[in-house]
Amino acid sequence: MRVVVALGGNALLRRGEPMTADAQRQNIRSAAPMLASIAQQHQLVLTHGNGPQVGLLALQASAYSEVEAFPLDILDAQTEGMIGYVIEQELGNLLPIEVPLATILTMIEVDPADPAFGNPTKFVGPIYDKAKADTLAAEKGWVFKADGQHWRRVVPSPEPRRIFEIRPIRWLLEKDAVVICAGGGGVPTRYKSDDDRTLEGVEAVIDKDFAGELLAREVDADLYVMATDVDAVYQDWGTPDQRRIDKATPESLRGTAFPAGSMGPKVEAALRFTEHTGKRAAIGSLAQIEEIVEGTAGTQIVPAHVASA
Amino acid sequence: MRVVVALGGNALLRRGEPMTADAQRQNIRSAAPMLASIAQQHQLVLTHGNGPQVGLLALQASAYSEVEAFPLDILDAQTEGMIGYVIEQELGNLLPIEVPLATILTMIEVDPADPAFGNPTKFVGPIYDKAKADTLAAEKGWVFKADGQHWRRVVPSPEPRRIFEIRPIRWLLEKDAVVICAGGGGVPTRYKSDDDRTLEGVEAVIDKDFAGELLAREVDADLYVMATDVDAVYQDWGTPDQRRIDKATPESLRGTAFPAGSMGPKVEAALRFTEHTGKRAAIGSLAQIEEIVEGTAGTQIVPAHVASA
Repeated sequence: MRVVVALGGNALLRRGEPMTADAQRQNIRSAAPMLASIAQQHQLVLTHGNGPQVGLLALQASAYSEVEAFPLDILDAQTEGMIGYVIEQELGNLLPIEVPLATILTMIEVDPADPAFGNPTKFVGPIYDKAKADTLAAEKGWVFKADGQHWRRVVPSPEPRRIFEIRPIRWLLEKDAVVICAGGGGVPTRYKSDDDRTLEGVEAVIDKDFAGELLAREVDADLYVMATDVDAVYQDWGTPDQRRIDKATPESLRGTAFPAGSMGPKVEAALRFTEHTGKRAAIGSLAQIEEIVEGTAGTQIVPAHVASA
Repeated sequence: MRVVVALGGNALLRRGEPMTADAQRQNIRSAAPMLASIAQQHQLVLTHGNGPQVGLLALQASAYSEVEAFPLDILDAQTEGMIGYVIEQELGNLLPIEVPLATILTMIEVDPADPAFGNPTKFVGPIYDKAKADTLAAEKGWVFKADGQHWRRVVPSPEPRRIFEIRPIRWLLEKDAVVICAGGGGVPTRYKSDDDRTLEGVEAVIDKDFAGELLAREVDADLYVMATDVDAVYQDWGTPDQRRIDKATPESLRGTAFPAGSMGPKVEAALRFTEHTGKRAAIGSLAQIEEIVEGTAGTQIVPAHVASA
């Protein structure tokens, strides 16, 4: 099988944990044996979140006032390098030297007409008081929203439309390489206009589960797995009626509401993948990733003809 | 021809220029038309320096005291992502969409027994006063040397021994992709010991011209070009006897002394490449990169049988 695994930010860094280089490496090192086991049985493509990492880089950049902080697309590219490096190294340490690994910097096209640009929703970077937020809004055109008692920048989260490096990714898969790509949802880029086909970075964040779904489709994956820190998708999570979903068809879940910030995009991405491809998608805990790939853990989204078989 | 071009840090960022995202992009944008022209006539592999960039990331990280600054290998990986991204995007904007581009995160093996580890020479990161330098030396085991009136960390600059991602790089070249790799000399990595083949990052900086030379050899390049901000190699630079070298054989230059910090490693890398492969190497100004590739500008290092032909 060709398997695309999306590692959630919360799988790479436990909630509340300080984002040191050591903490990141230890978490990736803990996950590596499971991922290596999958890579030895299947063809593995890895993608990953970058929320805590890009947040720290933004904090570091704004703490150093001598040089203007880098825009988000540059920070995204930085995190693709640093997270890809640690994953590639830790995974490489467990695989035979014959298994090639490659981390590919990935740019993903977004549509300037995407409605997300009219409604920024993703928090990024430091918290500010109202006065400083107003100043930055005036200076840089940033949009701020209240985050608890503070103010924090929000950026749009547009849909991924095209993975520019898809050909190199496919070629490396043909050679049986383990490919790490589309980290952090890819660097969001767009053409300046229909007439001017100059590609430029965008101050936005593509949801990494949606980017992973596009990637899985574009590499003809047999399975798309989203690994996070909860064991499965639950209906009515946190209510007395809470109910774990072991297996479902896209038809049975379409229309069900899940929390927008966390499980919602994962479920949507899983449904999209199975609807588009007729293949299996799954969501569950990184700790059970091998069983999830086997189909015996997590929430499995399967096409109707498989579910009824 | 297959051509490896190493872009110097000073070619990407003019001396004294503030290291903003805009300045970096403008410089890369200025170079892109020349590089695109080469890519349309030849097969192009690009590598690049990261000195100013890794310096800025180290400054940013030490300005933010909440989280311990990342080690150098992580910062290197960040710069491979961010510089590769801008080069790939700017170059891609000038090439037909049919030309695939890929930026490959690159780890390069160094030897723990390399004598460089006994004599750290490369300055990295912020300047400190003596007291702070002594504290950091005690806390982190860093080595400091005087840099003018201040103190600055120095790290070893070991020889590059092996490019771990050389197979993916070659496969992408077989598909006629423009490949950007080994940025900043690659992320220096080493095996823990002869018995423990666990790969780990090293707090060191591999000279990017030496890394580029190894890359050029390993991809069977026909030409290895180092682009910087001076037009050629000069003998007795800065003296009344200063003499520009247009063309030379490795035999004629071996033993000649060049400044260790700047031109010395470039000349050494050029000599190595031509000695190992019998192919041409060249050093010159990024502004003349097309003529340098043609053989009509810069300093051309050629094997004896070509020089006498």
